[in-house]
Amino acid sequence: MLASFDALKKILRRLPGIGYRSAERMALYLLLEGREQAQELIRGLSSSLDALQMCSLCGNLAEAERCSICSDPARDSSLLCLVETIPDLYAIERSGDFRGRYQVLGGKLSPIRGVLPQNLPLAHLRHRLEQEKTREVILALGGDTESEATCQYILREILQPLGKEVTRIGFGLPSGSGIALADADTLHTAILARRKL
Amino acid sequence: MLASFDALKKILRRLPGIGYRSAERMALYLLLEGREQAQELIRGLSSSLDALQMCSLCGNLAEAERCSICSDPARDSSLLCLVETIPDLYAIERSGDFRGRYQVLGGKLSPIRGVLPQNLPLAHLRHRLEQEKTREVILALGGDTESEATCQYILREILQPLGKEVTRIGFGLPSGSGIALADADTLHTAILARRKL
Repeated sequence: MLASFDALKKILRRLPGIGYRSAERMALYLLLEGREQAQELIRGLSSSLDALQMCSLCGNLAEAERCSICSDPARDSSLLCLVETIPDLYAIERSGDFRGRYQVLGGKLSPIRGVLPQNLPLAHLRHRLEQEKTREVILALGGDTESEATCQYILREILQPLGKEVTRIGFGLPSGSGIALADADTLHTAILARRKL
Repeated sequence: MLASFDALKKILRRLPGIGYRSAERMALYLLLEGREQAQELIRGLSSSLDALQMCSLCGNLAEAERCSICSDPARDSSLLCLVETIPDLYAIERSGDFRGRYQVLGGKLSPIRGVLPQNLPLAHLRHRLEQEKTREVILALGGDTESEATCQYILREILQPLGKEVTRIGFGLPSGSGIALADADTLHTAILARRKL
């Protein structure tokens, strides 16, 4: 009926997590009540596209060829933290404890969803590890099966052959939470990960 | 950290149905893998904003001052269908049975969410009904409490004083569905709405 409206819905629908109804609702909002906000979105998106790119070294968002972490000489280049996504990287930065560098994988191995080793930047990771004086690699992927398989694969195919020290982030009870509310898997992991006091 | 990225997230977050995490995911997608799609979004949104506006008569999306329905002389102007939203209007159009005209209310009365009679285009509706030779008004609002209250209010304050014939869309069992799967409220309404065969 309205060609430009249909085209806009189609574009919005291809965004991650947006279905048909959300796309329609968003398009109507932007064209009716939110017209000013739509102009802001156009301006904000244009200037972000101009200002930001992917860091050529670690895959983080960057304002130049290298991101602020990779180009910060105060960061410890002997520590490399592997994360799945940029929001994971931000979460670790917010925790304030990590002073090393990152490599964003951009995904995890999943034969079912068609993500194979060649779809992850593993050749790039191997190259970095050969070039940089990395002492320890921290595997900061989640606790699901696909993340576990990805860690195992990277360990066996890349990190062990290069003889790097490898650690995996700790798993167990989330800080501030109670025993009775934890699920069985979490408690299982927490008991396995018990430490001597 | 990255000012333009933060600004973009903030704009996206104000879209309907988008929370903090979806906004971040969407912004990262648009700036990294989806850069081409981001350019399409900018173009699609710009041309839609130029091409589309709200129909000054019924509140539908329009390519001119009046929408295609209001400006179609073949539509029956003696029938006026009241809907809450534009997607409701589209749904009725898809059913193909209605040849009259519409009034989009853009909301329903809800004292809790601060939607009062003066926030709905009721003065405009009264004016239309006085001007146009409307014979029948069809209340095509949903079956929830707020929609019911809105129908009752419009009936009492506007439609009855003007002496218009008023109907409400039918409620009952959805077409193709079974008795055993229907919830108690739907069955209650369906039994009340039974017809002689």
